[in-house]
Amino acid sequence: MTLIVQKYGGSSVADAERIINVARRIIETKDNGNQVVVVVSAMGNTTDELIKLANQVTERPSERELDALVSTGEVVSSTLLAMALEAMGYSAISLSGAQAGIRTDAVHRRARILKIEARRVIQELEKGNIVIVAGFQGATKEMDVTTLGRGASDTSAVALAASLGAEVCQIYTDVEGVYTADPRLIPDAERLSEIGYEEMLELASYGAKVMHPRAVELGELYNIPILVASSFTGRPGTLIHGGVSMEVRNKVRSIAHNLDVAKITVVGIPDRPGIAAALFEPLAEANISVDTIVQNASVNNITDLTFTVAKSQLHEAMEVVEPIARSIGARECVSDADVGQVSIVGTGMQNTPGYAARMFSALSKRGINIQLISTSEIRITCIIDESRVEDAVRVLHRAFKLDVKQ
Amino acid sequence: MTLIVQKYGGSSVADAERIINVARRIIETKDNGNQVVVVVSAMGNTTDELIKLANQVTERPSERELDALVSTGEVVSSTLLAMALEAMGYSAISLSGAQAGIRTDAVHRRARILKIEARRVIQELEKGNIVIVAGFQGATKEMDVTTLGRGASDTSAVALAASLGAEVCQIYTDVEGVYTADPRLIPDAERLSEIGYEEMLELASYGAKVMHPRAVELGELYNIPILVASSFTGRPGTLIHGGVSMEVRNKVRSIAHNLDVAKITVVGIPDRPGIAAALFEPLAEANISVDTIVQNASVNNITDLTFTVAKSQLHEAMEVVEPIARSIGARECVSDADVGQVSIVGTGMQNTPGYAARMFSALSKRGINIQLISTSEIRITCIIDESRVEDAVRVLHRAFKLDVKQ
Repeated sequence: MTLIVQKYGGSSVADAERIINVARRIIETKDNGNQVVVVVSAMGNTTDELIKLANQVTERPSERELDALVSTGEVVSSTLLAMALEAMGYSAISLSGAQAGIRTDAVHRRARILKIEARRVIQELEKGNIVIVAGFQGATKEMDVTTLGRGASDTSAVALAASLGAEVCQIYTDVEGVYTADPRLIPDAERLSEIGYEEMLELASYGAKVMHPRAVELGELYNIPILVASSFTGRPGTLIHGGVSMEVRNKVRSIAHNLDVAKITVVGIPDRPGIAAALFEPLAEANISVDTIVQNASVNNITDLTFTVAKSQLHEAMEVVEPIARSIGARECVSDADVGQVSIVGTGMQNTPGYAARMFSALSKRGINIQLISTSEIRITCIIDESRVEDAVRVLHRAFKLDVKQ
Repeated sequence: MTLIVQKYGGSSVADAERIINVARRIIETKDNGNQVVVVVSAMGNTTDELIKLANQVTERPSERELDALVSTGEVVSSTLLAMALEAMGYSAISLSGAQAGIRTDAVHRRARILKIEARRVIQELEKGNIVIVAGFQGATKEMDVTTLGRGASDTSAVALAASLGAEVCQIYTDVEGVYTADPRLIPDAERLSEIGYEEMLELASYGAKVMHPRAVELGELYNIPILVASSFTGRPGTLIHGGVSMEVRNKVRSIAHNLDVAKITVVGIPDRPGIAAALFEPLAEANISVDTIVQNASVNNITDLTFTVAKSQLHEAMEVVEPIARSIGARECVSDADVGQVSIVGTGMQNTPGYAARMFSALSKRGINIQLISTSEIRITCIIDESRVEDAVRVLHRAFKLDVKQ
């Protein structure tokens, strides 16, 4: 029998009616002769509301307790979904992350999955049950509840699919798949019917909110095909997999953008070994995620170092960086919250010159100033003024002919 | 070091402010040099709201799923309380029923505690932590979440106190203790400073909502003193224990009443062995709790049998009883939902004649008709018209001089 793992996001299970609709979709898959494991997020804004509740008690809740608290959100949605299935005459069982054997490290709020002890899930599948697993959560070996970080229900789903050897992991969400650009910005953006893991990883990491990058990475590692589709329509979605044809690969696939970017520049650093470590280790310890890092060529043994962080972490990052900057003899620290980034992604860029030039020229013709550039083998990202990001996406979507029907 | 178990009910932790107040009370106990284990109920009406949510999905939710769903209520309150304590500088840890080692049978919605594997709780106490345990819940050996039935957080608390060898189990609630009658009915009812387990058990079973009878039974079995007091005031409360002095015992202690009573009479039953079993076994299987049972003396081998159930279970009980009544050749089944019961309780009644006579005479002088009588060694209960119950409590409170300051 074919095993399919499905994941439904918070907006898909936001109320009783939607939960019943999701149950109908699951039953369709079950009736087609498949075994089904379903991963669910918490209903609607439950997670935020639980965090708000914690903040009414204390501004700095303990991370262990916060994990135990917010994990109840997915327990609620998973039990309700199991009830809905049973009410429709299908045997189903809900399992918390701990019960489903999702073992993680003990780093609360952002735990990593160590392994999945799938015994219970397999048992329940063998009994003919549809198994509903609470997403986003796991447990340490001491059975303390952990959460995997925001948006990580995708990761739960792909990890379960990998450990159970599922044929496909279907991620149902409120968008219809992966597009050539954000369709809210570019109305004629096209849905991609398929995309490679690496491209998807770059898109997810550089602003496309369709899927969590960790989940894509895991899918690539275990070669699990991932379908991203809408839980509200019957449309086909986008299949993320490793077998995307050569032809399709040979171009820019999509434009990603991200407005949640702030820039910090440490100016006038005496250039000597260990400077980067001195800056970035404390940031990592403070759990501040640093994105693009650019260091200028040194002039007279003095260099500048610029990096980006999420806007919400700018204040905290400056508090970490400023004393270090002073201690290493830098001249000053400058921050700018009014930036954003735009990226072009496609395996077609690999070993093919000219993409960077086309990108920079398209932006320049439109009078958009590039502040920073960072690249990977299949991606080019420009940091620009925040107010110009939407315009940049439009310009690039046209420049790389993504508006032309494939 | 002395170990104290405290339990806080739903109204004591109904919002963030009250949770912080409860944290202060706990800290007081901790600062007095005690180890503290705290059992909490769900915040305010959470349990009812979760059940309502389930009923939006299906009218008959699966009991296993319902248990997993409602158990989140106590996880939420216990984590918030642990956070509050930590924010005040005290190390604390929340544990779910499963984590606290509360092992139960697999009878969902009304599980019984089989044992408490207190290893984790003891470990955390030894680390100096205040341990907050989610009440009302446990887990089977397969780690499926169970609940102990309504009001059973008291049971969780006393069971933990027994298994940890606590000096006392303090039940903090929204009343100030056990009174000579319900103070909402009898404004000059007196708070009892102490009461025996057996008396408390009768009071709790016959309408006094101060404490859950199972918890009192458990306290008696393991000889754990139980203090019932208000979490909102600093008043001393009522101590339930085994060492109540002889003198105090020699009288009626309190008047209990209960309006949640309905009466079923099976009329004209051919009197032969096995009739009672034929009626009450199916009721037990349908999980209908039968209270008072009275069988009339048989005349011409024909008898009547009357019993009481909760009003909410009357309809269901009649559905079970009517076909049985027909099959055993009874003439008819009659039900009456407009009844209530009033009880006098006190070890002083033991081997002392005259209490029943005084009770019946007091009711009769007031024109209150007695429909059914049931007695234990330390309790006399009369089933009367529902509309006369309050009046009966007043009359009896005076008749047994409970209104006279002790």
